[in-house]
Amino acid sequence: MQKFFINELEFNNLTLKDDLIYQAFKVLRFKIGDKFIIGFNDKSYLVKITLINQKELKYEIIEELNINNELDLDITIIQGYPKGDKIEDIIKYGSTLGANSFIPCFMERTQFKIDLKRQENKMERFNKIAREACEQSMRTKLSNVEQFINFKDIDYNMFDLIYVCYEEEAKDNNMVGFKESLNGLKSGSKIAFLIGPEGGISEKEIAYLKTLNNTKFISLGKRILRTETASLYCLSAVSYERELK
Amino acid sequence: MQKFFINELEFNNLTLKDDLIYQAFKVLRFKIGDKFIIGFNDKSYLVKITLINQKELKYEIIEELNINNELDLDITIIQGYPKGDKIEDIIKYGSTLGANSFIPCFMERTQFKIDLKRQENKMERFNKIAREACEQSMRTKLSNVEQFINFKDIDYNMFDLIYVCYEEEAKDNNMVGFKESLNGLKSGSKIAFLIGPEGGISEKEIAYLKTLNNTKFISLGKRILRTETASLYCLSAVSYERELK
Repeated sequence: MQKFFINELEFNNLTLKDDLIYQAFKVLRFKIGDKFIIGFNDKSYLVKITLINQKELKYEIIEELNINNELDLDITIIQGYPKGDKIEDIIKYGSTLGANSFIPCFMERTQFKIDLKRQENKMERFNKIAREACEQSMRTKLSNVEQFINFKDIDYNMFDLIYVCYEEEAKDNNMVGFKESLNGLKSGSKIAFLIGPEGGISEKEIAYLKTLNNTKFISLGKRILRTETASLYCLSAVSYERELK
Repeated sequence: MQKFFINELEFNNLTLKDDLIYQAFKVLRFKIGDKFIIGFNDKSYLVKITLINQKELKYEIIEELNINNELDLDITIIQGYPKGDKIEDIIKYGSTLGANSFIPCFMERTQFKIDLKRQENKMERFNKIAREACEQSMRTKLSNVEQFINFKDIDYNMFDLIYVCYEEEAKDNNMVGFKESLNGLKSGSKIAFLIGPEGGISEKEIAYLKTLNNTKFISLGKRILRTETASLYCLSAVSYERELK
């Protein structure tokens, strides 16, 4: 069944915004009486269409759904800004796999030059990608892409634990600790995975991260992963470890 | 360090083929004395360049490297052919994450029409994507993309176990068994993950798979994954379960 995440205005008026009306009417060809799911404020509701045309869509709430499709950890992906549009795949697949938040961050080896005028357009686009991925994967919560930030300006204190994906660990075949640590986290913990851009995290950045008392250096298997694959591995591992029985 | 997978002719003549010479000379700007790694026949060798120009590259073997970056299971991804060029991402990321073989397969809900003339070009392109991903991730073995095949024509007997990723399982929140099963597999087992195209595996196909005695139906967490995300989840889970301590 189709899910749409909506805002407060839409929720109060039991309607959808223009682009979703277009999708419902033109693409999905919804009719009066058709049902879909709305997500608002971390809750899901089954609704039924009472009015639909090119310009308007109204619905009534049938019931609140008691669904929770979320990981039991609050996960942020701190991603060293990668080349090209890889960040979009990271947001799309990461949202599908259950990340709550993305922090695109400028690191020493980031090769991307920011044009601040374009940042706003990008944020809008990134959050749309996140919303659509959350809708498609039937997330209960909407994931969120935060403003670009410099590596040093991140408030690392907000996390209970930051897993630093550091490929030197993989090369040394030193793979102790991720599993045990992940298994031992309290439900609801706020954690982050920090992933470098192409070329990885610099020695200076690693030295800085080592001064923090809430970081843990992990490796992700024997092979050298691409920057856009690392977050998918981490999120899959969290689901596998904590959701499967 | 750069790795190139080479064929028997190149290995016997201690050279590289044209496109790799171009990459070594023009892109990587290798010079005489520079070292790289060659992969041949599931072995890796450190080599040193003795001659390089636009047309020729010769090297000598310094030593065989005692590296094994492979998962301890022989994994095939049986992928219901997806829309667009998603299959290329599946091959690229799947090779990075350790899959040995890919079988693109036509299933009931595949929306792709095969043009047999174009299959050969595609196979060449797909295997190039696999090779480059294996080189970049420092795989010891080269992964392989097999010919397109119909779902019913696959020889399912060649696998010790086939995990069928079936999203209905996820919807029912019935997630028992994958972890225990994966954990219990003997090293070297030949397994497959079978993943449907968009729209999933049909009821008829599920019924057929249930008649086989080496299938196990699994779900991949609480969220509905995209067809191109499912194999990445599976391969990450294998690495996490069997490589990390």
